[in-house]
Amino acid sequence: MQMSREIELEGHIIDSGIMTKVMDQVMDMGGNFEILVFDVGKQKTDPSYARLRIAAPTEEQLDLILSEVFRLGAHYPIVADAALVPAEGDRIVPKGFYSTTNHPTQVKVGGEWIPVEFLEMDCILVVDKEQKRACCTPLSKLKKGDLVVVGEDGVKVDYPERPREGGRFEFMHGTVSPERPSETLIEQIAREIIDIKRGGKEVVLVGGPAIIHTGGGPALAEIIRKGYIDVVLAGNALATHDIESNLFGTSLGMDIRTAKNVTGGHKHHIYAISEVMRAGSIRSAVEKGVITGGVMYECVCNKVPYVLAGSIRDDGPLPDVITDVMVAQDTMRRHLRDAGMVLMVATLLHSVAVGNCLPSQVRTICVDINPASVTKLMDRGTTQAIGVVSDAGTFFPMLAKKLDEYAKTFSV
Amino acid sequence: MQMSREIELEGHIIDSGIMTKVMDQVMDMGGNFEILVFDVGKQKTDPSYARLRIAAPTEEQLDLILSEVFRLGAHYPIVADAALVPAEGDRIVPKGFYSTTNHPTQVKVGGEWIPVEFLEMDCILVVDKEQKRACCTPLSKLKKGDLVVVGEDGVKVDYPERPREGGRFEFMHGTVSPERPSETLIEQIAREIIDIKRGGKEVVLVGGPAIIHTGGGPALAEIIRKGYIDVVLAGNALATHDIESNLFGTSLGMDIRTAKNVTGGHKHHIYAISEVMRAGSIRSAVEKGVITGGVMYECVCNKVPYVLAGSIRDDGPLPDVITDVMVAQDTMRRHLRDAGMVLMVATLLHSVAVGNCLPSQVRTICVDINPASVTKLMDRGTTQAIGVVSDAGTFFPMLAKKLDEYAKTFSV
Amino acid sequence: MQMSREIELEGHIIDSGIMTKVMDQVMDMGGNFEILVFDVGKQKTDPSYARLRIAAPTEEQLDLILSEVFRLGAHYPIVADAALVPAEGDRIVPKGFYSTTNHPTQVKVGGEWIPVEFLEMDCILVVDKEQKRACCTPLSKLKKGDLVVVGEDGVKVDYPERPREGGRFEFMHGTVSPERPSETLIEQIAREIIDIKRGGKEVVLVGGPAIIHTGGGPALAEIIRKGYIDVVLAGNALATHDIESNLFGTSLGMDIRTAKNVTGGHKHHIYAISEVMRAGSIRSAVEKGVITGGVMYECVCNKVPYVLAGSIRDDGPLPDVITDVMVAQDTMRRHLRDAGMVLMVATLLHSVAVGNCLPSQVRTICVDINPASVTKLMDRGTTQAIGVVSDAGTFFPMLAKKLDEYAKTFSV
Amino acid sequence: MQMSREIELEGHIIDSGIMTKVMDQVMDMGGNFEILVFDVGKQKTDPSYARLRIAAPTEEQLDLILSEVFRLGAHYPIVADAALVPAEGDRIVPKGFYSTTNHPTQVKVGGEWIPVEFLEMDCILVVDKEQKRACCTPLSKLKKGDLVVVGEDGVKVDYPERPREGGRFEFMHGTVSPERPSETLIEQIAREIIDIKRGGKEVVLVGGPAIIHTGGGPALAEIIRKGYIDVVLAGNALATHDIESNLFGTSLGMDIRTAKNVTGGHKHHIYAISEVMRAGSIRSAVEKGVITGGVMYECVCNKVPYVLAGSIRDDGPLPDVITDVMVAQDTMRRHLRDAGMVLMVATLLHSVAVGNCLPSQVRTICVDINPASVTKLMDRGTTQAIGVVSDAGTFFPMLAKKLDEYAKTFSV
Repeated sequence: MQMSREIELEGHIIDSGIMTKVMDQVMDMGGNFEILVFDVGKQKTDPSYARLRIAAPTEEQLDLILSEVFRLGAHYPIVADAALVPAEGDRIVPKGFYSTTNHPTQVKVGGEWIPVEFLEMDCILVVDKEQKRACCTPLSKLKKGDLVVVGEDGVKVDYPERPREGGRFEFMHGTVSPERPSETLIEQIAREIIDIKRGGKEVVLVGGPAIIHTGGGPALAEIIRKGYIDVVLAGNALATHDIESNLFGTSLGMDIRTAKNVTGGHKHHIYAISEVMRAGSIRSAVEKGVITGGVMYECVCNKVPYVLAGSIRDDGPLPDVITDVMVAQDTMRRHLRDAGMVLMVATLLHSVAVGNCLPSQVRTICVDINPASVTKLMDRGTTQAIGVVSDAGTFFPMLAKKLDEYAKTFSV
Repeated sequence: MQMSREIELEGHIIDSGIMTKVMDQVMDMGGNFEILVFDVGKQKTDPSYARLRIAAPTEEQLDLILSEVFRLGAHYPIVADAALVPAEGDRIVPKGFYSTTNHPTQVKVGGEWIPVEFLEMDCILVVDKEQKRACCTPLSKLKKGDLVVVGEDGVKVDYPERPREGGRFEFMHGTVSPERPSETLIEQIAREIIDIKRGGKEVVLVGGPAIIHTGGGPALAEIIRKGYIDVVLAGNALATHDIESNLFGTSLGMDIRTAKNVTGGHKHHIYAISEVMRAGSIRSAVEKGVITGGVMYECVCNKVPYVLAGSIRDDGPLPDVITDVMVAQDTMRRHLRDAGMVLMVATLLHSVAVGNCLPSQVRTICVDINPASVTKLMDRGTTQAIGVVSDAGTFFPMLAKKLDEYAKTFSV
Repeated sequence: MQMSREIELEGHIIDSGIMTKVMDQVMDMGGNFEILVFDVGKQKTDPSYARLRIAAPTEEQLDLILSEVFRLGAHYPIVADAALVPAEGDRIVPKGFYSTTNHPTQVKVGGEWIPVEFLEMDCILVVDKEQKRACCTPLSKLKKGDLVVVGEDGVKVDYPERPREGGRFEFMHGTVSPERPSETLIEQIAREIIDIKRGGKEVVLVGGPAIIHTGGGPALAEIIRKGYIDVVLAGNALATHDIESNLFGTSLGMDIRTAKNVTGGHKHHIYAISEVMRAGSIRSAVEKGVITGGVMYECVCNKVPYVLAGSIRDDGPLPDVITDVMVAQDTMRRHLRDAGMVLMVATLLHSVAVGNCLPSQVRTICVDINPASVTKLMDRGTTQAIGVVSDAGTFFPMLAKKLDEYAKTFSV
Repeated sequence: MQMSREIELEGHIIDSGIMTKVMDQVMDMGGNFEILVFDVGKQKTDPSYARLRIAAPTEEQLDLILSEVFRLGAHYPIVADAALVPAEGDRIVPKGFYSTTNHPTQVKVGGEWIPVEFLEMDCILVVDKEQKRACCTPLSKLKKGDLVVVGEDGVKVDYPERPREGGRFEFMHGTVSPERPSETLIEQIAREIIDIKRGGKEVVLVGGPAIIHTGGGPALAEIIRKGYIDVVLAGNALATHDIESNLFGTSLGMDIRTAKNVTGGHKHHIYAISEVMRAGSIRSAVEKGVITGGVMYECVCNKVPYVLAGSIRDDGPLPDVITDVMVAQDTMRRHLRDAGMVLMVATLLHSVAVGNCLPSQVRTICVDINPASVTKLMDRGTTQAIGVVSDAGTFFPMLAKKLDEYAKTFSV
């Protein structure tokens, strides 16, 4: 173990588990550590401080280890500026580029710590030295000549500490069990929505067409009408079946009030799209009185912005659908800027897409009938996601009821 | 195709699909058929009649084919008495024994058609010549000397015709999609429960512990209190966690009102069982005021019989649990005699067990968060089962509400 | 029942179940029927013929009923030309437009029956009177002035008859059980692939990234190298992780040979995409020796065309990805023209997308670890799909082995 | 925070995460802590030592907190003898009884630490003072007068430290993803089986009937024949379908080589049971040449003991089935005494049952097509379980191959 470097850790590093994670990481990767200083916060409000010497058999291995522990919030005692290398072409990363986490991050540029903007995971850190800005940049937007951070020097991550008392959902992290009391969880989601909105942040809904098929549409429309949702992110299918159910009472040709297939119902979604096409857009179809209710109608009437992202399996699609997925992704990103909470219901595709663009401090709740959907979302890096295994068709009516109850309780 | 025999088919054989099924079966098994007579009912109320000559290359193959088409309701034009062979030992079947379907069946004994009692699938037909009775007998109850029907002669099955107008659930047969309007389906289940009870038949609940874990317990208790359920079939776990939730507010140690694990909660189910043990039985614990609410409490107070069948994974178990599974199976069977409807919620094990003992005309509804559970139930022969993919914790509160609404509507 | 019309049915209408389906449909929709002529094929090779008078209380209801039974292959005794109405704008359908099934279809134009080209479900029938051509047209491609078939007159559907002997997979239709003998099914898929190719049709693979994550990549690459696959339809993720696994031995940062996450592995997929970006395309990266093996490599080397369709959750994406989903859909369609078989593995999104574009006679096999995926595919209209519940990581090695065995057996 | 007590922690308490867990627990439960002494092991092989003062607002709350941290391995600096209270009746626990974890545990009796025997979770600690023995006792076996440990004094738990280098499966703990490289995992299972056996411990198979239905039977039979399995725990269904497949080539009437249902196949499992009944037992049926191959056959021939536990859904059952579930549970327990590894395949019921009886140091691997099965097993307390999402029908042939490969490699 000839190679070694000193690193520092600060904050609630014991009770947040970061100290443990760092030691685990070092040893799992074949390194070793010596604790040089360890000042433990005696009371629960005291921060702790540790200095460790990390050692490894080779320079290369040491770098790999350091690269991982820096992602957990460790840093060099004296921090140099971040190294910057210009991108040699559009969408081409320099060797050794710094790949972002979705945790709050700072970069040292010109001796100063700059907070990173537009945080999301697996992106590139691009620095504008003149403007003193550092932006998280997806590969698709990297331009030739952009100054890219390489290596770990001069980057500091605030690894999220485990929240303590009053954490409404903390107990659920990392577990996805269908054996939880549904009504309790839905009540907690209702409280969280109201608290987030009172805190001045936005609540974003990400939804799939099963919301409509399972009959959850009217309750969701009511929730939007009452102002609980600030942005809707979805695809062609949710909007089409929502409009179909407004025009014909069916969803994919099935009557929502009887659950039976309706004669000629297989044409309904094509008619629905065609009618919106004739009007020019969903907004215009609402204004012309073609669409008279439902989720999209309430979005239009209540000025709730929506993004409909195209997918390879779309019929039609509706004129409002953004068929270029990279354009759709960017539009979606812009609408996530003020999100305090994202509620994902019955859509794996859009949930993973949105999860990719979220910083880890956004409350992320994923409701799906299939526990595997939440597992996949977390496998893809959205580790802050909390999974609720439930059925959209019973979830939304109960959520609407709980929102009303909690809103009332509070006003009194 | 040297070997051939004539068979007859009567009833709504075209529009019920039986004619098609018979032809399919014959040809799939390498046989052939000639239609000798085919009198089609011209109007939808008219029955049809067909006589077919079934042919096959060998006697053995012909017998195999006939054996299958007889299960669909075909029979010989002139029917001989059923052949009877005594069982050579307890639980030993004679070669060629007739294996029952779960459809209404008659046996010809002494020139007379006798209806088969206690119908369930995969059983043995035992005839009591003196009493002129024929009983469907599970292998476990077959005694040495019992007269067992062998071959297909003298047995007639009424294959269920596809129900027509007004069929509330017919559209759902054979499909298990989570994309159905939940509220609509739950309303239909509520109506069915009330109709079944008005028709003088019983409603049987088969339930698993997830009902309690997901917080569905109070709504189910209310449904029992209001008299909608006539029998409860479950296991040690449902009863234990129901009693635990009454004594401690928890289910497997998780507080149902907060969804968090409670300190010392891992002991609660053992305490719950131990308290019932001290009282002597669940009934006695209710009478002594130890248990003051919940599913089992309502069963006791409202004289709703329950069967708790033991399973290999039981803790305890409660003194009311029948630990010998064959005894439990028989007890369960007795409580299914007057069932018009069985509602199975969140338990694959008990659902398959009960499904095995049901004749096909009992309305069977299986509610589970996992669509694969219903598929398995149908794979095991309970083909009349209708699957609803939903979450017990939201299902029961909505069912309780719909039952109240429909009961009110009707009384007015 | 004042309103009535006569219709005809021909072919193996009894043993295919079509006669039954027609009668069911009429009665379920509140109509009635009288059988005027019924000539039953006495032998299994004889076709049957039926003439029915269909009646309904109102003209409108009668039209609805006829519209449905025509989809089953019924037609008027004397067939008029199809009625044609020009589309009033791009992507706007005329009222009463004929919505296609995915079964073989003919249209009567100028007294002549013309076969419909490019069949897929839920599309519009556009007729070119001069060229005497009729094309199935998705809404997105409908142009102002296109002559669209409206009503059911002059359209004839060949509803697929139930296949009889030798049907390799027929027994599986409509059921999706994980309790099937996997090795047997995989052997049958191997035989089917070889038979389809010998019959001169193409085998199309539709695949998701789980193929790579579960370690199925090398076996799939081998299958492509040996020439069993003619087209690959996938997305950015499959190609990215395949290339990542070639460059780094990892898939999403997990070492495929140890199943452990690799240090710095979270950067690998970005590096992989960036390297392809630098080369210009996947083909070019193969030619420059950057990519040296794997699924995409074998596609390039063996001239197997691939379509990579963009999705909202894409990182990068690779330069070969078609980011406009409607362009991607059209490209995909072109590659499905000669498909005799489509093998869909571990991707719900692409499976539904491809299923939408397939005529019903294309053998469609869907392999997924989750039985609900196949149910969804069938719910979306791809009723010919056969579901195999298995794990891509064990499926492909066994398929490669069975293909070799069967290919050998046959050559001898 | 008037109430407080001092506790100690020793060992690799930082890098095992125990220090973190203790602090978390205290604060989550509304308590507080002060670190009095904290000697950190400087090198990774050094143990650490901590003394903490735990405080809480009330005596009761303090007790609750201490009760939880003791389960993590903390203890009082000076440890008194465990308090013992006689059970007042059979199956009735004294108030405050100590409920066991499944981790190695010691009890202080007469000033001496005694290791607890027959460890499993949620049981009662019964001490025999004369024999100086302490046994983990399920409620069902608690007898009046048994000396039961109450409170936490004098009990010490060795909470498992997180294993470090070379841990073959550690990376998988707590995650159940279908996106793992199947072949790699199966190879690791093969190595583990061989290593466990070389270490002189037993490998126990817990299996469900889907092993037979999916065609995994022959490979499992081969694995048993080659001596890799020491005990088989299953139910009536696995044995019945295994014997059915030997006698008739079918499983639940489906031909395993063609995947098609066989005429008369619905009778096969009844015949199979009846034939064993005639022989008297499975062993006797093997000896008489009735059963000539398969899983049960290899068990008999290779003297591998098996326990067939009855369940409420059993047909028959076979004469070898233990129909009283509490007797079956005890028999199972006895066969788990020397288990070093338990391989659970395709059976949730038996997996949970066996999991309940295992100490946490037994390697526990659960293979199921449904990721939710493993989640449930872990929810029920078998937290050491490692989940592999795969299909029994492809899993066993690959496992057989890998076992052979690894066994060969090693012998050379």
